[in-house]
Amino acid sequence: MGEFDLIARYFERPARHAVLGVGDDCALLQPRPGTQMAISTDMLVSGRHFFADTDPFRLGHKSLAVNLSDLAACGATPLAFTLALSLPEVNEPWLAAFAEGLFALAGAHGCELIGGDTTAGPLNICITVFGEVPVLAGRSQALLRSGAKPGNDIYVSGTLGDARLALDALLGKVTLPDEILTVARQRLEMPTPRVALGLALRGIASAAIDVSDGLLGDLGHVLEKSAVGATVEADKAIELISAHAYCTRAEGQFGLKLSTDQWRALALAGGDDYELLFTAPPSLREAVAQAAQSSQTPVTRIGQINAAPGLRLVDNQSQPLANTYASFDHFG
Amino acid sequence: MGEFDLIARYFERPARHAVLGVGDDCALLQPRPGTQMAISTDMLVSGRHFFADTDPFRLGHKSLAVNLSDLAACGATPLAFTLALSLPEVNEPWLAAFAEGLFALAGAHGCELIGGDTTAGPLNICITVFGEVPVLAGRSQALLRSGAKPGNDIYVSGTLGDARLALDALLGKVTLPDEILTVARQRLEMPTPRVALGLALRGIASAAIDVSDGLLGDLGHVLEKSAVGATVEADKAIELISAHAYCTRAEGQFGLKLSTDQWRALALAGGDDYELLFTAPPSLREAVAQAAQSSQTPVTRIGQINAAPGLRLVDNQSQPLANTYASFDHFG
Repeated sequence: MGEFDLIARYFERPARHAVLGVGDDCALLQPRPGTQMAISTDMLVSGRHFFADTDPFRLGHKSLAVNLSDLAACGATPLAFTLALSLPEVNEPWLAAFAEGLFALAGAHGCELIGGDTTAGPLNICITVFGEVPVLAGRSQALLRSGAKPGNDIYVSGTLGDARLALDALLGKVTLPDEILTVARQRLEMPTPRVALGLALRGIASAAIDVSDGLLGDLGHVLEKSAVGATVEADKAIELISAHAYCTRAEGQFGLKLSTDQWRALALAGGDDYELLFTAPPSLREAVAQAAQSSQTPVTRIGQINAAPGLRLVDNQSQPLANTYASFDHFG
Repeated sequence: MGEFDLIARYFERPARHAVLGVGDDCALLQPRPGTQMAISTDMLVSGRHFFADTDPFRLGHKSLAVNLSDLAACGATPLAFTLALSLPEVNEPWLAAFAEGLFALAGAHGCELIGGDTTAGPLNICITVFGEVPVLAGRSQALLRSGAKPGNDIYVSGTLGDARLALDALLGKVTLPDEILTVARQRLEMPTPRVALGLALRGIASAAIDVSDGLLGDLGHVLEKSAVGATVEADKAIELISAHAYCTRAEGQFGLKLSTDQWRALALAGGDDYELLFTAPPSLREAVAQAAQSSQTPVTRIGQINAAPGLRLVDNQSQPLANTYASFDHFG
């Protein structure tokens, strides 16, 4: 099968929102008056972001999910995306499953494929995603990293650390009981972009970022852009690990024994969580709770923004903890 | 150097047109009222689209040039781009030169980098580019592949075949005299995106595409989308090969002997030309000439659109030629 047949068979769908979709030199999008376009791009490399033998349906899902997560962090409504794909070979069952996973998530978010590129080469998936953010009274409604203020609460959505636990298990670094591996692997391979929560937080959150490299590292970006510091309750983050909750409920019957420090590392620096980390003034706690409820996304308050620079970790007795939890760095 | 230092040092520049550039979860663009956004993406893979040891300044130029060429084919004004980069290692001199080549071309077109992603992995460069197209009286001014009409002239800009000749020389398939290799290699490694011509052709060209895979193959896309056929004068295309002109002028002193069929193959199916192939009614020949002049881009009439489907090649005596010139296909 040639390049153009491949595109036609697996990736050409009629455009519904776009003026022009796949099949010309450019796609054409016409943003609605009074809106801005939010744009983000992510590249996933085989052997680095995913195992070469990852289930292609799940890989299609995740490739788009990590991009939608950036729109979520910005409070943008997904509109469209482009896909550039480098493939070592034309493997039709693989492509069919990849496309199915990709379009299932795209369809759930009304986000359409409007263009792309395919080439032979080492497996590499590069998606650029487009979303819409309203401008009200001359003010962009986008959530940025730069708006956190001293006294703001710090929240994180959903769960933390499970993706990294699954990765460590797949790498043979830890042995997980099947029940836990299944749940953790779902978080690693099928992350849920928190798009509905991001939209619900417009006008409420003062700053937001998605947790991709690890909670503390990504919080560090918010602190840097907002020129503030923070205090984080490490043990509240531990409670957000699904696997930790399983183990606690099972009272040791799984035989999975991790130290408190290991659990903290998973929650605080695990990475690949694709949850939203955001800040909001304490006066808006009720509004945050309503946003969580309306978007059906659990959120947990895990700390506070301080005027003093730096990131402080405390345990559940409010005692200071050394921050030895380094985030993932592709070139670290 | 970590991922974030790398981005800050080489790829973070202040946004001038964008509402928000590099450094948050998303970039923000606010298109002007009455415009559409043209979007295209291209992925360049080491060892396939370029040699691993290609001069990084030239590679930076070409990576953006092939994307700007898509905007040119659409008649769009360049606005911004995102860059996703997979790098086998952090090689600072290489990155500095790559960024220099990239930003030199970007600056020349007022096209700013607004976001991206960097990761470790096999060398891969994925750029998504954004341009602006006006909508006049409810009608998009974008040049599309689908507007060619029977009786239209077929034109191509600039030169053809030199990039492929340089590639063949670098692959050791042909030996070129230094004078010719220098010129041909410039066309391979530093293609000129025909942005000014594309803009000048708005309202004049009935269809357009950029020549990336080979003249006849790319013309085939126009014929398919426009549901028409065409007749192309093969030997007019040969005259557009700079190296052919050199050899003709030098009267054999270079010792480069190619058959007429080999020259035809270079011009008609060489690929990597990044010229504009476009159609226009004969009544607009003067307007086409003015567009060429105002954009300082030579254009040559090489054939005609026919109502009868299919692509017919003729020689300089109007005698039919067999079309044995296959375009480049990444999976062919």
